[in-house]
Amino acid sequence: MSSDALTPTPAHKFTFGLWTVGWQGRDPFGDATRPALDPVETVQRLAELGAYGVTFHDDDLIPFGAGDATREQSVKRFRAALDAAGLTVPMATTNLFTHPVFKDGAFTANDRDVRRYALRKTIRNIDLAVELGASVYVAWGGREGAESGAAKDVRTALDRLKEAFDLLGEYVEQQGYDLRFAIEPKPNEPRGDILLPTVGHALAFINELERPDRVGLNPEVGHEQMAGLNFPHGIAQALWHGKLFHIDLNGQSGIKYDQDLRFGAGDLRQAFWLVDLLETAGYDGPRHFDFKPPRTEDLDGVWASAAACMRNYLLLAERSRAFRADPEVRSALAASRLPELALPTAQDGLAALLADRSAFEEFDVDAAARRGMAFEQLDQLALEHLLGAR
Amino acid sequence: MSSDALTPTPAHKFTFGLWTVGWQGRDPFGDATRPALDPVETVQRLAELGAYGVTFHDDDLIPFGAGDATREQSVKRFRAALDAAGLTVPMATTNLFTHPVFKDGAFTANDRDVRRYALRKTIRNIDLAVELGASVYVAWGGREGAESGAAKDVRTALDRLKEAFDLLGEYVEQQGYDLRFAIEPKPNEPRGDILLPTVGHALAFINELERPDRVGLNPEVGHEQMAGLNFPHGIAQALWHGKLFHIDLNGQSGIKYDQDLRFGAGDLRQAFWLVDLLETAGYDGPRHFDFKPPRTEDLDGVWASAAACMRNYLLLAERSRAFRADPEVRSALAASRLPELALPTAQDGLAALLADRSAFEEFDVDAAARRGMAFEQLDQLALEHLLGAR
Amino acid sequence: MSSDALTPTPAHKFTFGLWTVGWQGRDPFGDATRPALDPVETVQRLAELGAYGVTFHDDDLIPFGAGDATREQSVKRFRAALDAAGLTVPMATTNLFTHPVFKDGAFTANDRDVRRYALRKTIRNIDLAVELGASVYVAWGGREGAESGAAKDVRTALDRLKEAFDLLGEYVEQQGYDLRFAIEPKPNEPRGDILLPTVGHALAFINELERPDRVGLNPEVGHEQMAGLNFPHGIAQALWHGKLFHIDLNGQSGIKYDQDLRFGAGDLRQAFWLVDLLETAGYDGPRHFDFKPPRTEDLDGVWASAAACMRNYLLLAERSRAFRADPEVRSALAASRLPELALPTAQDGLAALLADRSAFEEFDVDAAARRGMAFEQLDQLALEHLLGAR
Amino acid sequence: MSSDALTPTPAHKFTFGLWTVGWQGRDPFGDATRPALDPVETVQRLAELGAYGVTFHDDDLIPFGAGDATREQSVKRFRAALDAAGLTVPMATTNLFTHPVFKDGAFTANDRDVRRYALRKTIRNIDLAVELGASVYVAWGGREGAESGAAKDVRTALDRLKEAFDLLGEYVEQQGYDLRFAIEPKPNEPRGDILLPTVGHALAFINELERPDRVGLNPEVGHEQMAGLNFPHGIAQALWHGKLFHIDLNGQSGIKYDQDLRFGAGDLRQAFWLVDLLETAGYDGPRHFDFKPPRTEDLDGVWASAAACMRNYLLLAERSRAFRADPEVRSALAASRLPELALPTAQDGLAALLADRSAFEEFDVDAAARRGMAFEQLDQLALEHLLGAR
Repeated sequence: MSSDALTPTPAHKFTFGLWTVGWQGRDPFGDATRPALDPVETVQRLAELGAYGVTFHDDDLIPFGAGDATREQSVKRFRAALDAAGLTVPMATTNLFTHPVFKDGAFTANDRDVRRYALRKTIRNIDLAVELGASVYVAWGGREGAESGAAKDVRTALDRLKEAFDLLGEYVEQQGYDLRFAIEPKPNEPRGDILLPTVGHALAFINELERPDRVGLNPEVGHEQMAGLNFPHGIAQALWHGKLFHIDLNGQSGIKYDQDLRFGAGDLRQAFWLVDLLETAGYDGPRHFDFKPPRTEDLDGVWASAAACMRNYLLLAERSRAFRADPEVRSALAASRLPELALPTAQDGLAALLADRSAFEEFDVDAAARRGMAFEQLDQLALEHLLGAR
Repeated sequence: MSSDALTPTPAHKFTFGLWTVGWQGRDPFGDATRPALDPVETVQRLAELGAYGVTFHDDDLIPFGAGDATREQSVKRFRAALDAAGLTVPMATTNLFTHPVFKDGAFTANDRDVRRYALRKTIRNIDLAVELGASVYVAWGGREGAESGAAKDVRTALDRLKEAFDLLGEYVEQQGYDLRFAIEPKPNEPRGDILLPTVGHALAFINELERPDRVGLNPEVGHEQMAGLNFPHGIAQALWHGKLFHIDLNGQSGIKYDQDLRFGAGDLRQAFWLVDLLETAGYDGPRHFDFKPPRTEDLDGVWASAAACMRNYLLLAERSRAFRADPEVRSALAASRLPELALPTAQDGLAALLADRSAFEEFDVDAAARRGMAFEQLDQLALEHLLGAR
Repeated sequence: MSSDALTPTPAHKFTFGLWTVGWQGRDPFGDATRPALDPVETVQRLAELGAYGVTFHDDDLIPFGAGDATREQSVKRFRAALDAAGLTVPMATTNLFTHPVFKDGAFTANDRDVRRYALRKTIRNIDLAVELGASVYVAWGGREGAESGAAKDVRTALDRLKEAFDLLGEYVEQQGYDLRFAIEPKPNEPRGDILLPTVGHALAFINELERPDRVGLNPEVGHEQMAGLNFPHGIAQALWHGKLFHIDLNGQSGIKYDQDLRFGAGDLRQAFWLVDLLETAGYDGPRHFDFKPPRTEDLDGVWASAAACMRNYLLLAERSRAFRADPEVRSALAASRLPELALPTAQDGLAALLADRSAFEEFDVDAAARRGMAFEQLDQLALEHLLGAR
Repeated sequence: MSSDALTPTPAHKFTFGLWTVGWQGRDPFGDATRPALDPVETVQRLAELGAYGVTFHDDDLIPFGAGDATREQSVKRFRAALDAAGLTVPMATTNLFTHPVFKDGAFTANDRDVRRYALRKTIRNIDLAVELGASVYVAWGGREGAESGAAKDVRTALDRLKEAFDLLGEYVEQQGYDLRFAIEPKPNEPRGDILLPTVGHALAFINELERPDRVGLNPEVGHEQMAGLNFPHGIAQALWHGKLFHIDLNGQSGIKYDQDLRFGAGDLRQAFWLVDLLETAGYDGPRHFDFKPPRTEDLDGVWASAAACMRNYLLLAERSRAFRADPEVRSALAASRLPELALPTAQDGLAALLADRSAFEEFDVDAAARRGMAFEQLDQLALEHLLGAR
């Protein structure tokens, strides 16, 4: 493959959160290992590496509780850096988890004043997001949950969560903003159990909102894998519902704490099938990296890992293209009857199905049972493509 | 508490699958340890123990591939046993997983003829289910899934799954049956990854069907816990959507193979919160036990474990009543501001929220952050009630 | 049961780490929610609650990098508080994880100077531990591990780990200290994978040391459960090897991030079997709580959760006593042939076993296979005792 | 790379269990999907594919309970097939799990007669194993465990387990057999919790035996990964103890039921580091595949998956060689200070370490903390080698 195909450009729509490369390495057992990064420097560096855009939480850009002057100044510097670097801001989000006021949640905190504050904090940053050109607003409800059974009445909490999204939708509509919301599910951490723990739960929730069309998902690789779920399967279902509004790419090594490894690290085979799906399904949103360079790294390691996220995506996309173009793969897909899955089961209609004796009374079950599916041959082809061995 | 409160009666609506007490103990590494049970004996024994009903897969009652005479005879004997024992059949389901013809799934098998056969097999048993009085028809798609990435195009498979439920709904409607479907999610086993892996994914899927009102859920304790999810939280969300049509009660010790322990074994605290939720939320469907008496047990152990399922439910219901009635608990709930969660966040409307300076500009964030939630005191009260120590 | 039996006293040997009640609630996504606690206040409060002792990391007591004057002053105040309160210090340990210098580990850091520094830091605190009366010195190697495959040569790292414990053993022996080491295993977090991930791996490692008798274990409930392992089983094996030198009691809800819930929360049935094991096996070391009061709590919640740890232990000990004293339980144990497990399989010797035709040639395998184990009846008795329902 | 390097030959020491390709596809929810394979055919086919040997459970070769004539005949045919094909039998093992008599275990069954029977059954097959040339005898205690807390006294059970291995060792010694035992750990399935659940627990156990030198390990990829453990780390520790007597290679997709996927499927990155470790550590035993071709496959799929196991091993070995030979990798290893980990921490001895002011008093902790470990650059090189992209 040409090295050009592996060089990131803005056309690839790679984006990074300010908080990713900017993570200072504070973890539950340790202090920061890296200095704070100036968002302006981040913008410059990411542009040099070939990124398309950056994203942010309000507090990444403007210190929590800063006055109007600081706020304006921060935004002005940031916008100037974006313009200079040619980077976009396709997404923004709210920090509703760091300050202790959110210790019991934000939109579903038991305390009503905390809920109201959370909504106002969100609305304030929505204005900024739109001003900076964002079309997607992510909502990660990391603190909406509980560690014990009576602490949260889940049905009531879902009422409050619906109320929050309905109010935010009303606001955005009133302002005439061209902005959609993307809910980011997570099963646990930092709460013992978080509401809307998976892609599925969030998809179901959206259907109960007043403006379901305006709300979709921002699934994150590691979050679904923390529940042992197959991430490409979850993304396929989100696409099937028309709800993949945004995506968070990173790596996770199985069911444990949230690792946020660089994309490509962790479950490599799922990473391959994910890229294969995104590239063949026509997903055209940002490829957003939400990762944390391990705290063992200095800033050189930070930028190396950011570059590697993009390079790994492009490498896997190359592998996917070669896999799909391989005539032997096409034969193997046919041998596994994938084309037959695409045929309706009963385009002849229910009555015809019921009348079809070959479908039941005269169906040779044992003969059908003897047919092998040839999945191992197919999967081995995929594995060899992934390994660059074909 | 009175021992009467712990004696199961049909009013408690306890039901058991024929396949539960009838499980012979065949597992992936071992042969059967118990003889087959005659469904007639099962009916008698369960009635003696105080059950309300039994449920069945088609093949539990009528051997796979049996001719019409055997079929009629089996049904007749079963119905006579039910009548004699006074047991109901509130639910039935289809075995679409044991025969090797279903090795790649049923409604989403790559082979179209297998899909058609699966639909016909299901429809045939729906007729019997209705004849025997069932009002819920469960669909566990245990074989709908894959072990490898290219073997199943998930979006296409979801198309087929939707097609199947739409056809079944059409059939039931045409026949004028008063029957609703309940999808039973499971994340994996026997497939590497199963479609609709959690309560959430299934709830979302239902919204895409032609007759969403006719389809709900049959969640199983162990299935959600196999993904590390909080089962009472999942049930609360299912209730919130109005979709808890049926429930499978059993026990599971964490993320591992599907254990199907008796109800009460496994995660005891979740079992408590589950019963508390079902009893306080007004769920009035069957309390259906879908468990497997461990293969170490003989038939005495089988009936002892069946009796224990019911007793444990009743014990936990007693503990829940005492918990909810305890004035100290009510104070603790208030101290944790649960009543405040029930208040709308902005019944004053969006405009008033935006205009309310006390909600943001003048909100004392640090003072609010200092308020403790008192969840530990509340949870300790719950634990002591559970332990019978108050 | 009498309330006296549930009132903690120093005779129960309950101990707490300074860092437990003193945890300020900083987590990977949030800032501190509680003020720092003065160790002197902690000592007073724990004594009032009935504790027997406190334990500490060097940096809990003396700020990292403090000069000698501060150090002496801190120790003096602490010792005075201990004397006043009548509390002991049975255990101490080193903080080898918070400062960024330990980001790649301490005894197995790739950097030799970091390893040397870690040893000296440990030795310095061993002197203080002994001075304060500790007889056990815990070593949790939380940062000894890796996130990626080439970053750590595990065999070489184990050489370094052995070297460290050999040097520490040499030091302690030279000083004539009556001090034993207790290794605390953990599978992951804060590293992707930690060396000596379970009780078993640590037990095996000890056998390679120069002074294996001086080194044992400090297993922690949640750490083993983070690997899905049965904690009482692990403790039983540690006891079997004579290596349970100390124990960390807390709660964990399955395989996920390290929760450090109060003892009794999390897996209640394992907590019961653990207390049953400790009380019947004659473990006479401290019952040490290593938990973190959830960050939702204020200081009232902190002290309430500390008190609840002890109360739950005493409640479970009561339940265990009643279980073991119940004649029906004794019958059930006999029915399950537990007494027969205690008989040697071949006290007649190998030759006799080989010559015994009843053991093989004439053994009625099928008859033996039909015997039920009656485990369900036994386990139900245990569950009812736990629920206080007998 | 040359295709020759990817063609399996006996020199590669690839071996397969008769029960692997011979698995008929019976799972907890489904009947067999494939016919039984004649061991003679298996031997022929594996030899054609390039294998070095086959392994077996007694009951794979000789039907359970067969008379002496059948036994002799089975062995004779098998031996003739081996001779004709030029295959070896480097390992054998006992089936102590399929027959219902073992439902509560074998060496630790509560029933003494079952324990005696299990020992005799094992001894009988040891004779055959030695006769066929095996030098390793594997012991997987899959049924040694429990589903409930009182059903098994773990310390007593470990006494019985030790007794069993001591008796077997005595027998082998008396017979003058050149045979070593290899314990195969597994955390759960088919029992709720299995004794000796991980590599670590088994390593520790061995130290208590009368003949520890004669007993080592047979770790299986999927078994450790079912506990979320890093398999290459476990193997490294087993090698460090000199206890890697044999190894079971397969694939597993995270913490769930035992999948036994073909080698290479599942966690590909761990597979790479495993091969890298085995090839660089000088492990010279068999590369034994203990996998189950998915039940979706017919016999073509079975042989394809067997061939793929070997090919994937060889592919990963190629990738490992290239990785280790790459000068950029060597620089990266140096930049990550791996060579420094190989230096003793204190070859100057304890006294010198204590006297070295540069080690503590004058150590610049903050400067050391600022050094980056460069692990991300190193891991990205490894990933690109794995992907065949360098």
